[in-house]
Amino acid sequence: MKKSIGAKTFAMPAPVWVVGTYGANGEPNIMTAAWGGICCSTPPCVAVSLQKIRASYDNIIKRKAFTVSIPSKKFISEADFAGMVSGKDADKFAAAGLTAVKSELVDAPYVQEFPLILECKLVHTIEIGLHTQFIGEIVDVKAEEAVLGDNGLPVLGKVDPFSYSPPERLYYGVGQSVGQAYSLGLKFKK
Amino acid sequence: MKKSIGAKTFAMPAPVWVVGTYGANGEPNIMTAAWGGICCSTPPCVAVSLQKIRASYDNIIKRKAFTVSIPSKKFISEADFAGMVSGKDADKFAAAGLTAVKSELVDAPYVQEFPLILECKLVHTIEIGLHTQFIGEIVDVKAEEAVLGDNGLPVLGKVDPFSYSPPERLYYGVGQSVGQAYSLGLKFKK
Repeated sequence: MKKSIGAKTFAMPAPVWVVGTYGANGEPNIMTAAWGGICCSTPPCVAVSLQKIRASYDNIIKRKAFTVSIPSKKFISEADFAGMVSGKDADKFAAAGLTAVKSELVDAPYVQEFPLILECKLVHTIEIGLHTQFIGEIVDVKAEEAVLGDNGLPVLGKVDPFSYSPPERLYYGVGQSVGQAYSLGLKFKK
Repeated sequence: MKKSIGAKTFAMPAPVWVVGTYGANGEPNIMTAAWGGICCSTPPCVAVSLQKIRASYDNIIKRKAFTVSIPSKKFISEADFAGMVSGKDADKFAAAGLTAVKSELVDAPYVQEFPLILECKLVHTIEIGLHTQFIGEIVDVKAEEAVLGDNGLPVLGKVDPFSYSPPERLYYGVGQSVGQAYSLGLKFKK
């Protein structure tokens, strides 16, 4: 039996991604975003939503670029911190002991310590309400060699990202692989 | 050392959500989407991206509504199936043994068997490229009582959703809760 629980942002799982930008004076900033997802295959695009009050909002508008650095679970505290404090008040890279690397492809920095990076050029800005959605075209993905499989592509179990549960404000690790897409459903195909 | 692996949709984890719509003759349809995410807190909104060739694309354009039904891992094969076959060729609810429930709030059906449902009114349509992104305002969330915690809110561990790893085309279960947001990062706060 289903129960109505109101108009809430209770979709799950949500990703935990760290958005990298440069400020007005070239200072690198990061903020953590759980409101986001891939939004197009060709061109490859990713969306992240930010509030206008964030330092990162102005940075993306001005530089027309951002990165998405995907943290491993071992950096969960650093990622949580980057979502708690404003880049207007703190150098979050320094405070969390993280290293900013300047992207050679877009005008934004990424987090050296995180294993998987998307470098993005801003292509759409959608004003929705409290949040503005920025859609970035992914111009390159960079990955630590240690998280690549034999085929040279990233393995989720090695990246070891984590998820966010909005109703609980809890992070969850990833579990085991549970099946191949475009395969499990074949049994229902006539 | 980071390695460039090209302009790809390799963000992770991606969600596995089932989008419910009505066709021209009122026939219920579902399709599975991994390109999506929450995109605004106020009003609460969720984004899903679909290709124009999908039956669901026309359905959302015409009815200006969709639902997101979040499957538990025990319905992984049904969800995989709904991403493999077109609603133009099959009654996917019937083929997968799922039950369509008419939303009382929006002009779209949801999946009775899945534990967590978002009912959405279309508010923005963004043409990006191969995919079109539909942003829906979440007008209600419905949850099975069995997945609610003591506070009446959904518990991810009980919903038991699963994730998708784009580079591997693999599904992954969720793991254990690994910490409270807005708490783990306090140690870096000055």
